[in-house]
Amino acid sequence: MPERTLHLNAFLMSTGHHEASWRLAESNPYANTDVAHYQRLAQIAERGKLDSVFFADSPVLFSDVGRRPSGALEPTVLLTAIAAVTTHIGLIATASTTYNDPYNLARRFASVDHVSNGRAGWNVVTTAGPDAARNFGLDDQPSHAARYERAAEFLEVAQKLWDSWDDDAALADKESGVWGDNTKVRTIDHIGQHFRVRGPLNVPRSPQGHPLIVQAGSSEDGRSFAAQYAEAVFTAHQTLPDAQRFYADMKRRAAAVGRDPSGMKILPGIVPVIGSTEAEATRLERELDDLIKPEYARVQLAKTLRVSPDDLALDAQLPAELPDEDEIEGAKSRYTLIVNLARRERLTVRQLIGRLGGGRGHRTFSGTPEQVVEAIVDWFDHGAADGFNIMPAALPSGLEVFVDQVVPLLVKRGLFRAEYEGVTLRDHYALSRPVSRYQRDPDRRWEAVGA
Amino acid sequence: MPERTLHLNAFLMSTGHHEASWRLAESNPYANTDVAHYQRLAQIAERGKLDSVFFADSPVLFSDVGRRPSGALEPTVLLTAIAAVTTHIGLIATASTTYNDPYNLARRFASVDHVSNGRAGWNVVTTAGPDAARNFGLDDQPSHAARYERAAEFLEVAQKLWDSWDDDAALADKESGVWGDNTKVRTIDHIGQHFRVRGPLNVPRSPQGHPLIVQAGSSEDGRSFAAQYAEAVFTAHQTLPDAQRFYADMKRRAAAVGRDPSGMKILPGIVPVIGSTEAEATRLERELDDLIKPEYARVQLAKTLRVSPDDLALDAQLPAELPDEDEIEGAKSRYTLIVNLARRERLTVRQLIGRLGGGRGHRTFSGTPEQVVEAIVDWFDHGAADGFNIMPAALPSGLEVFVDQVVPLLVKRGLFRAEYEGVTLRDHYALSRPVSRYQRDPDRRWEAVGA
Repeated sequence: MPERTLHLNAFLMSTGHHEASWRLAESNPYANTDVAHYQRLAQIAERGKLDSVFFADSPVLFSDVGRRPSGALEPTVLLTAIAAVTTHIGLIATASTTYNDPYNLARRFASVDHVSNGRAGWNVVTTAGPDAARNFGLDDQPSHAARYERAAEFLEVAQKLWDSWDDDAALADKESGVWGDNTKVRTIDHIGQHFRVRGPLNVPRSPQGHPLIVQAGSSEDGRSFAAQYAEAVFTAHQTLPDAQRFYADMKRRAAAVGRDPSGMKILPGIVPVIGSTEAEATRLERELDDLIKPEYARVQLAKTLRVSPDDLALDAQLPAELPDEDEIEGAKSRYTLIVNLARRERLTVRQLIGRLGGGRGHRTFSGTPEQVVEAIVDWFDHGAADGFNIMPAALPSGLEVFVDQVVPLLVKRGLFRAEYEGVTLRDHYALSRPVSRYQRDPDRRWEAVGA
Repeated sequence: MPERTLHLNAFLMSTGHHEASWRLAESNPYANTDVAHYQRLAQIAERGKLDSVFFADSPVLFSDVGRRPSGALEPTVLLTAIAAVTTHIGLIATASTTYNDPYNLARRFASVDHVSNGRAGWNVVTTAGPDAARNFGLDDQPSHAARYERAAEFLEVAQKLWDSWDDDAALADKESGVWGDNTKVRTIDHIGQHFRVRGPLNVPRSPQGHPLIVQAGSSEDGRSFAAQYAEAVFTAHQTLPDAQRFYADMKRRAAAVGRDPSGMKILPGIVPVIGSTEAEATRLERELDDLIKPEYARVQLAKTLRVSPDDLALDAQLPAELPDEDEIEGAKSRYTLIVNLARRERLTVRQLIGRLGGGRGHRTFSGTPEQVVEAIVDWFDHGAADGFNIMPAALPSGLEVFVDQVVPLLVKRGLFRAEYEGVTLRDHYALSRPVSRYQRDPDRRWEAVGA
């Protein structure tokens, strides 16, 4: 039996996760639209044999363009550009089930999977907030529950479409002049609450069968969706007990729906600020925090908390009266995490902004490479994580130092691969290739194309 | 004043436009999902300094998978993969206004334009046929007129979104900590018949401002749409007089809406089958036609003509009674072209299938490189074309021979560039970069983000 080993994903964001990182001397402030910047980052991650790179996304321009680099390249486009200059690293794009059509999106992920030779992953999000809704003809977002209901049906449709071609449908028989076998390509005839989709997909089945499915919401709806579909879960926790509770809950939920819990990898976010000494790491962290302009962050925080910016005095704690999580239709678990962090540590608004500015609620950790390794191993060994979502505060430097100084220590301890052992993203995460639902259950009704 | 010179686009399709091309010994029958195949083709086209490569598209699996390589990579994904291995050639993707949301698609084209440093083009289609409609929750396609009405509003929304960031909105002022200027990024607040879109786009204005807009339908609705928006028009004609009439009509329509007619390039399709002697070209053409299996093509032809396959006897002419163009809600101009070709040349169904198998109604031409040059120059010099949409019957050989044997003759005659003179797709087609509508008309109402 192989030892249990870590999975590491690099969560990339323009000049880094720290909101002031773009002001560092090293930073290219136009990195947000610079494909070469991202191609270099992915090559660094691949040099470290990381499992994957990942991009967050929402179909809306967030916040204030004064604050930090704003606007981005659409993730499936960006990951395709990265695929062309890498060979192994996995490519995970975020895409919304609320503001896409399943046929278009299933097709695009299948195409990325072909183009990358089996390295595509999809972080499924339901997209919180009224501003995104207003880009798609709605006055406000659908309710949290309605968004997750649609997401579940969206995934069913996507999986049917990915399975609509058998793996051996293309015969390519030049002699007889028959290219494909019509009985192995089928309509899906999906009729549901949200979608009616005939199929088949216009892309042959892709190298991974289905792209890897990732999920990142930790609300009740998010957890039950993840239990059903997610093969990797990105999550945010500040303390070991919180992370352990989440980990145990998700594994239990996966088992409860009949899945092997090891087929769902739990990856908390960590924002490592790494120095060659503790003092150097602290200095780097302070340099970044000093560059934050709190007036920008206060407006954003007020939006998340559904209060007026005037209610947030920079040197006072949060107001005693705040909305209940139940009233929040947006990113529920992120809301609760922020409020709990502020209350637990009695942070002023200014201090809270400093903590969030580094990683928006994820575990921030400054220290030497050895200390980062200890922080990683602690959670990995104590039932809190199958790996980590690495969120460098500044890029490219934060990724480089992680790959060059932290990864070799993990390899030496036998906790991380020294070389890629497989070729697909599923190989890296030790996940099997899905068997087509139509081949699992050959009596399921279908109508062959052209029949 | 520079001489008037040709524009050449390579219209690429898996193993070539001839439906039997996949059966040739040279062909990779899995080319349809092989990104390396397409990257090589684009590099060949770039070696010839062609203006652009182009992919057709529809969000549906067409016809019978037995007939020819079926299923394809989604064009914006495919062109991004091509962008990564080329530096100059333009990249034109087809995308449907009927089955996309303007926010998502405007964003994706802006992203491809960034990733390619200004080489993106969009062939705007309204997507004919009930089968595509059934992949998007509809029982049948919207009417021809309704599809074009939506297309026009879609373009308006897309252009507003592309203009929602001024070119100089990003300040990147590290010293003061202000990244962008809020007064230069604005909501578009579009409220129309088909769409309500708030904006702004979440992508900064792209290198070309707007991707190049291409259009390919020649119906009345298609022509009037093209007159308004198209900067290049792909079209299909069998005879010089037909092509001249179309050319004159389109230039007149462009002028009638106040545009400079030279800002709309007319590019008829041509399927050149090239041999070093006339006999060799004829032999190659015959080899391809002999590989067609007429039973497949007959089913497809019947579908296009809205008749039963049983009504089409292979060795008889088309039935005397066929639907009127007015009754056709699909690809109207293609329908008429096929019926006219069959009637004019009194072709049997088998002969018609041979002609269509080579290029689906486009001008097919077999001959030596010198003869192909004459065929091109004849139309170019006689008011029928500003350039051509080159549709190789077999790939890669048909593109290689065009680039290596036809292009040098055109260059020698001063009709085609020997080197790229610009860097963007607009540069190649001698089209200007659009000025933002908000900068053209600064009093237009808008609401700054964060204001």
